[in-house]
Formats: sequence, structure tokens, C-alpha cells
Amino acid sequence: MSYDLLKGKRGIIFGALDENSIAWKTAERVHSEGGTFVLTNAPVAMRMGQIKTLAEQTGSEVIPADATNQEDLENLVSRSVEILGGKLDFVLHSIGMSINVRKGRHYTDEKYDFTAKGWDISALSFHRVMQTLYKADAMNEWGSIVALTYMAAQRTFPDYNDMADNKAYLESVARSFGYFFGKEKKVRVNTISQSPTATTAGSGVKGFDGFISYAEKMSPLGNASAQDCADFTVSLFSDLTRKVTMQNLFHDGGFSNTGVSQEVIEKFE
Amino acid sequence: MSYDLLKGKRGIIFGALDENSIAWKTAERVHSEGGTFVLTNAPVAMRMGQIKTLAEQTGSEVIPADATNQEDLENLVSRSVEILGGKLDFVLHSIGMSINVRKGRHYTDEKYDFTAKGWDISALSFHRVMQTLYKADAMNEWGSIVALTYMAAQRTFPDYNDMADNKAYLESVARSFGYFFGKEKKVRVNTISQSPTATTAGSGVKGFDGFISYAEKMSPLGNASAQDCADFTVSLFSDLTRKVTMQNLFHDGGFSNTGVSQEVIEKFE
Amino acid sequence: MSYDLLKGKRGIIFGALDENSIAWKTAERVHSEGGTFVLTNAPVAMRMGQIKTLAEQTGSEVIPADATNQEDLENLVSRSVEILGGKLDFVLHSIGMSINVRKGRHYTDEKYDFTAKGWDISALSFHRVMQTLYKADAMNEWGSIVALTYMAAQRTFPDYNDMADNKAYLESVARSFGYFFGKEKKVRVNTISQSPTATTAGSGVKGFDGFISYAEKMSPLGNASAQDCADFTVSLFSDLTRKVTMQNLFHDGGFSNTGVSQEVIEKFE
Amino acid sequence: MSYDLLKGKRGIIFGALDENSIAWKTAERVHSEGGTFVLTNAPVAMRMGQIKTLAEQTGSEVIPADATNQEDLENLVSRSVEILGGKLDFVLHSIGMSINVRKGRHYTDEKYDFTAKGWDISALSFHRVMQTLYKADAMNEWGSIVALTYMAAQRTFPDYNDMADNKAYLESVARSFGYFFGKEKKVRVNTISQSPTATTAGSGVKGFDGFISYAEKMSPLGNASAQDCADFTVSLFSDLTRKVTMQNLFHDGGFSNTGVSQEVIEKFE
Repeated sequence: MSYDLLKGKRGIIFGALDENSIAWKTAERVHSEGGTFVLTNAPVAMRMGQIKTLAEQTGSEVIPADATNQEDLENLVSRSVEILGGKLDFVLHSIGMSINVRKGRHYTDEKYDFTAKGWDISALSFHRVMQTLYKADAMNEWGSIVALTYMAAQRTFPDYNDMADNKAYLESVARSFGYFFGKEKKVRVNTISQSPTATTAGSGVKGFDGFISYAEKMSPLGNASAQDCADFTVSLFSDLTRKVTMQNLFHDGGFSNTGVSQEVIEKFE
Repeated sequence: MSYDLLKGKRGIIFGALDENSIAWKTAERVHSEGGTFVLTNAPVAMRMGQIKTLAEQTGSEVIPADATNQEDLENLVSRSVEILGGKLDFVLHSIGMSINVRKGRHYTDEKYDFTAKGWDISALSFHRVMQTLYKADAMNEWGSIVALTYMAAQRTFPDYNDMADNKAYLESVARSFGYFFGKEKKVRVNTISQSPTATTAGSGVKGFDGFISYAEKMSPLGNASAQDCADFTVSLFSDLTRKVTMQNLFHDGGFSNTGVSQEVIEKFE
Repeated sequence: MSYDLLKGKRGIIFGALDENSIAWKTAERVHSEGGTFVLTNAPVAMRMGQIKTLAEQTGSEVIPADATNQEDLENLVSRSVEILGGKLDFVLHSIGMSINVRKGRHYTDEKYDFTAKGWDISALSFHRVMQTLYKADAMNEWGSIVALTYMAAQRTFPDYNDMADNKAYLESVARSFGYFFGKEKKVRVNTISQSPTATTAGSGVKGFDGFISYAEKMSPLGNASAQDCADFTVSLFSDLTRKVTMQNLFHDGGFSNTGVSQEVIEKFE
Repeated sequence: MSYDLLKGKRGIIFGALDENSIAWKTAERVHSEGGTFVLTNAPVAMRMGQIKTLAEQTGSEVIPADATNQEDLENLVSRSVEILGGKLDFVLHSIGMSINVRKGRHYTDEKYDFTAKGWDISALSFHRVMQTLYKADAMNEWGSIVALTYMAAQRTFPDYNDMADNKAYLESVARSFGYFFGKEKKVRVNTISQSPTATTAGSGVKGFDGFISYAEKMSPLGNASAQDCADFTVSLFSDLTRKVTMQNLFHDGGFSNTGVSQEVIEKFE
């Protein structure tokens, strides 16, 4: 589908690693809706990724940036405005990593250096991105900033580890910064709480397959895919949702408000 | 704006009373996006309203229906499918009235006949509409049903009276029916929790002007207007939001997640 | 255990059917904490129940009252104040029944006469009880009113049927009336959202055993029992919780904030 | 009041600075209920505080501990078990400080070194405390861990700054660790979301007086005081609340569920 919903709009998309990434699908959809953007990722992630393919496909430039590094972010924002020819209308934050998860540390056995690093990458980075945009006055009025999150911020999923706490922090940053970005610049800030999604980043997590299958059976409409998420993000970048701000939006086929489904309960009868 | 987002989609819009109505604005926006629909309202409301003007303007037919009357609803649904030439893709429920409010009964002095009547009109009617659609198998897969609600369902606003409880019931119906409509028919059901809006229906409520002014000062982006709500509803009817279901979506310029604003706190310093 | 937490406090306890009832356990605990009370139940429920045994055991009187009947409630309140020798400090509302469930009507095939009757009994009755207490000025300052509810008010459980919507209404009534009862009389109003509990009332519901077993495996501390609930209710009736009001309190061993447990996920791997 | 609710129970109380502190009031109440405990605070805070007076008054020992220092926490836990003569039954975490607030940095102008330090002190410290207790197996079954938080974790209060995000993280830690502490050790973990309270720590915050006055007018029962909070905490440490876990409990006179009060709206009419 394509409706020219984002014609003339400019932005930055963080976190497109490979074609399974939500950010990748979003970039494709934004492109098909007429938006132009800069792609960015951490230098280390870019070495592994195929972001250049995506850049060619969408006519975008790639500017590497470590989202925990102030200078990188300032460069990214000023260069993006320059390249795109004006202030920005949309930003997607799709960044997250738990070192504790990577290193196999259980939640009750965290190594706090790992915790601090994971928090910096996954949660504080969202504040950094917005503070950089805010100080540079780089967003147009009625612009839209979106970060991806997960429902572990509200309810415990045993294997999600310290990413749950990081996502809770991230969602709070959306509300807190959303207040000031709204008041001062008429920019909205929201998070999308997405179904578990079989991305390359997610696929390494212990028990992930069982969990996706469980979530599928719990969700009346089934899990939302990366493609579905790209569509939904387009709606949040568009002018149709100008007064939605400081919200955490569940995009999950109904999982979040399903206490139990028939299929799940049957396993316990 | 117009993007052909609803081209080829058919639906029913309840509750367009006059040009201040959210339903009226929604009908205009849906029309401009290429959707076709039947307009409906209670026979008594229609006598007061100017719905025929809207019908002409949008090329729609009007079918009067009392949303508490089973026969009326069955007729409405079957006729709509017939007139529009196929199953439905969207439905907007914008119906509500508290007899206690109308008659000036305080929340601590309810007359329970009024309460029951108000609940039937404002809350149960949403179940009736969906049950009628469900039994008639009148919705297409990936259709979208939306009802309008207000945040009084979560937090108390002294003058909102028993409409708060009606809206809580309505939002629960959205979740409960959303489960079955999702599982069995792949149809999504959501509610929009809208800013206080200066409609003809709302304007009679005691203290409403003060409240709109307070909400405006509490909302970082200001109150969402009826026109904004029409835009947002279009996004929920479109194919961009297929996996959003059983949700209550705050469309309020950030009011719901603002604890207090600078402007409000200043009145207490 | 016994701490004299409710010494000198007077109240009314609705809904003690038999020794499996939460209200029954609560009456026993309140008695052991030094509280005095009147027991009440619908005349029809009393014929089936063993409430007289409980009355003897706790030195209480029984006053039958249909909670949908205004005269019955007025008589109950005035007689209770008289019998107990002063205004009331606590009230427990433990009343609920879905005729649709009883008659085997599916949620998508409700009979609306049944729905209205179930709503009147299960949800509106809570307003009736409070309005009667409020108008009679029958509560002492810092009194405490509690109603039992279930998490289906927030998330869908397919077999819970229209009781979900009734509980949503009930919880809203707690907030709405809690506002006025707090402001005007310094009385607090809360609901307890209890684990599924194997009471005589609950045991007839289809799929209930499977559900209790699922909830047990989802709750880090296991399901809360009727006895646990009685303890918790005592804490809410005591002077330790004077500033807790308009809240829905989850008493469920952690179920409500558990996204999935290890035991449950293992069934999907 | 005194009911012997905590007779025979042992614990640790963090954060009693002076007699205005919630932790101070809680220590007094726990003492009056028969509980024994160790008092602790950061070495730097102790120099300013009068904790020794409290220690004498309650027959407690004081063990200084920096809650961001692993060794200090391990020493605190092992010494406490030794001094008190057995495993612990309750822990109160009342620790928080934003360096950004102290240094007058606005939320849109954070210094990230300050942010990281404040997060470590205010949020991660709760994980540290629990991980230390968990690894040392220092809690008795059915023990209770409580941390103090504030509603800024859910809704934005402009002057609350990065403490909002810290509190969101803290509340998430309560849920995440509560899952494992519940499953493995039958220990409950909750947070109390308290009214704004005129403590020495809070009193320096810009606009605090106006805010307390606003909250008082928004809360049907008025703001909860430090003394009220001590009472409520006793109920959560007692055996009456054994199945309450992973919850954030609003203790605020109804503020959290009041959309607007009559007194507030009148300022806008």
C-alpha cells in the first residue's frame, strides 16, 4: 500500500540492522509513503548489517552514530537537517541491548557494569536523542518521535531480564520529554509496545521461540509482525495522529488486554 | 488532507447530530478518504439534527435506529450491507446520554430508572451493535470498530456523573467483544478516549466551559478537537492499524499522562 | 492471628453464603479482630446458605436484603446502626451473578434482559448500597467500604462473560462514589481484585478448574485464598490504611503483573 | 496505635534522615508494633542526620551503608542478620536523589553524568539491595520488601525531572525482582506511591509548596502524611497482606484516580 502519507516529511531512522529489523521495514514503508530520511546505526552494528542495501533502495544516506555518544548525536542531527534540506518531522528510536542477557547473567545475578551499559544504550539513549533534537531546535512543529518498547515494562517475563527495567525507563522518558516537547515545540512523543518479533536481535534470547508461540496463541489477532509495526509507525508519523502524545501504544493483536485465551487455558484443563 | 486511505471501504457511522459532532466530522473525513457509509441516529435525535445535510454532502443514506432496540439494529445492519453493496469495514459508535445529568440528579442522588436507561443507551448499546454485526456476519476480515469514550472511566471528574460508569462499561465491552471478534472474524475493536470536546451534546453539562479550559492548560499539545478526532479515527479505520485491538487509546494532547502542568500549578503557588 | 485491629468498629457484611465464601471468611476474621457487624444476603441466597451458623458463631444478627431493592437496603442500614449501637466503620460488598452465565448464554449471544438483571445485581447494587449509606449519613469518618472484583475488568477471560463488564462498572462506581464519600464524609472506598477463588458461587463456571490451575502457575506466590482475602480485607478496614481510596487493589499473588511464568511458557516450547 | 502486628519480625530500614522522613516515622511505628530492625543510611547522609536519636529511641543499631556500594550492602545484610538474631522479615527502601535537580539542571538540559549517578542511587540501588538479600538468602518466607515511589513514574510533573524516570525504573525492578523473590523464596515486593510529603529531602525542590497545596486540593481525603505512610507500610510488613506482590500501591488520599476536583476546576471557571 501507499498513500503519500509522508510526502515532504523528513526524518531519522535508528536501528535498521537487516531486513528482519522493524526499523528496516519502517524505512521501506516510510519511503513508499514519500518520506525522506537518514539512516543511522551504531558503527559496530553497521559492520554486521546490510544497511547500505537499504540506503540504496530508499535513496538515503547513512550516518553512523553511537547513541550513547553526545558528539555523534549532534553530528547526526545537524548533518541530517543539512542533507534532507530542512528540519525534521519524524524520528524512530529502535535501539536496545542488554549486556546481562548477552553474557548469560540471570536477573538475580546482574553484573552492574553490564546493567549500566545496557541502560545507557537502551534507555538513556532515547533521552540523549531527544535532548539533542530539542537543543538544536531540529524538529518541525507537529513532528512525531517514536520509540519501540515491550510490555515487559508493565509485566514480568522471566527471560526478558533487565531489558524490562530499561523499557520502563524508556517509556517514562517518552512521557517526561513528551511534556516539554509538546509544550515548547508542538512535537509528539510516543512508544509502541510491539508483539515479540522474530528479529535478528531478538532471536538469540533464550526461550524466545516458545514465547513467540505463546504470544501468538494469546493474541486474538495473532502477533503483530515487523511489517505490521512499520504500517502502524507510518500512522504515528502522519498528520492523522497529531494529538496523540506521551502514550505507550500496544500494537500486539490484543495480547495486552487478554487475560487468558481459550487455547492457552486448554493446556491446563 | 486526503490520501484515499479508505477507498473501497464501507461502514456505519452512529451519532452525527450536527456539524459540531465528532461523528459528523468523522463522516466528512471518511468521505474525503474514499469510504462509503450509512449514517444513523436515534429517531428522536434526528428530528433535532441536520443529518440530512450531511447525508447529501457525503452521498450517504440515513437509516434511523434506536441503538437500544434490537429490531432497529438488525434492520440497520442488513440494510446497510445491501445499500453499500457488501460487508462492512468500519463502524463508529458515538452514542451517549445520562438521564441523571439531564435531570440534574447528583451522583450521590441517582434515580436508578434514569441510571438504567442511561446505561442502556450509552454502554450496552455498544454490545448490541456488535452482537448484531457479529450474528449477521456483517463485518469483513480486518474490519475496525471504534467507540468514543472519555477518561472519566479511569479517573473521577465530579460533574461527569454516571457517564463515568457507563464509559467504564463501554470500554470493557470493547475488550470483551474485541476478544471474540478478533479470534473469530479478525475484526478489531477499540475505544478512543477523547479530550473534552465542545459538541452540542456536551455543551449543556454544568461546569463544562471551566473544564475545557482546565484541560486545555493541562494538555501539552492542547485539547484534541472534533476535527483531530476525525483524523485519528480515519487512521484506526485504515489498514495501517490492523493489529491494534482491545485498546483504549487516549487522544487528548497528552492530558492523560500529565500529572500537572506549569500553568495549573502556578494557580496554587 | 488476632490483633484487635477492629476493636470497637461496626459494619455490614454482604454475601456470606457458606464457609467457602470470601465474605464468610472475612466475617470470621473481622470477628476475631474485635469488630461487630450485621450479616446480610439476598433472601433467596439465604435459603440455600448456612448463614445462621456464621451468625451464631460471631454473635451477629442477620438481616435479609435484596441489594437491588431500595427499601430493603434502607431497612438494612437503619436497623444495622440501631443494632450495633452507632454509625458504621466498614462495609463489605461481595455480590455478583451473571444470568447469562447461569443460563449458558455465550458473550456473543447475550440475552439483554439477563444482562440488565446481572448488571443490577452485580454492579449497580454497589452504588445502591453506598447511596443508601451516604444519604442516611450512616458511616463514621475514616470508615472503609470494600467491594470484591476480578481482573476480568481489565483483561478478557473468555468464560467470564458479562461479569467482566459488570466488574468494570463496579470498579468505576468505587472511584466515582469514593470521590464524594471522601470529600464529604472522609470515608474511603476501594475494590479488591482477588485471585480466582474456589467458592460455591464460582465453582459452577465452565472451565473454572483449568483456570484456577493456570492462575496458580502464573502467580509467583500462588493464588490468594479466601482466607488470605479475609486478612487483606481486615487491613483495609483497619486504621492502617486511612489514606488509601478509589483504588483497585490486586490481591493475587502477583498474577496481574506477571506477563508469563516459566511454568506456563514451558508448555509452549 | 499499637497492635503487636510485627512482633518477632526483623528487618532493615533505609533512609531515616530526620524526624520528617517517612523512614523515620516508619521506624517508630514498626518499633511500636514489636518489630526489631537495623537502621541504615549513606555515610554522608548520616553526618547530617539525627539517626542516632532514632536508634536510641527504638533500641536499634545503625550500620552506615552506601546503597550503590556492593561491599557495604553485603556487610549490612550479614551484620543485620547477626545482630537481629535471624533472617529478615521486612525491608524498607527509602532512597532517592537527583543530581540534576540539585544542580538546577532542567529536564531538557540533563548532564548525563548526573543522570547516571542519580539513577544508580535512586533506582538501581533497589536492585542491589534485593540482589544482596537474595544471594545471601537473608529473607524469611513471607517476608515483605517495600520501596517508596511517586506517581511521576506514570504521569509527568514538570519539576520532578529525571526522578520520574528513576521511579519508573524502580517500580519495574519491584515487579521483575518480585517475580523471582516470590517464586523462589515466597517473599513479596511492592512499592508505595505516596502523596507529595514535606520531608527535608523534598522541601528543597522548586515549586514544592505549590505542588503540595495543589495535591491537597485534588485528593478527596487530602494528602497522605509521613505518619499515614508509616501506618500503611506496617500493614504491608504484616501477615495480613501476604499475597500482595509486584504491585505499585497508591497511598495518596485518592489523588491518582481523581481527574479533577471541584476546588481545582473552580480556578478555571
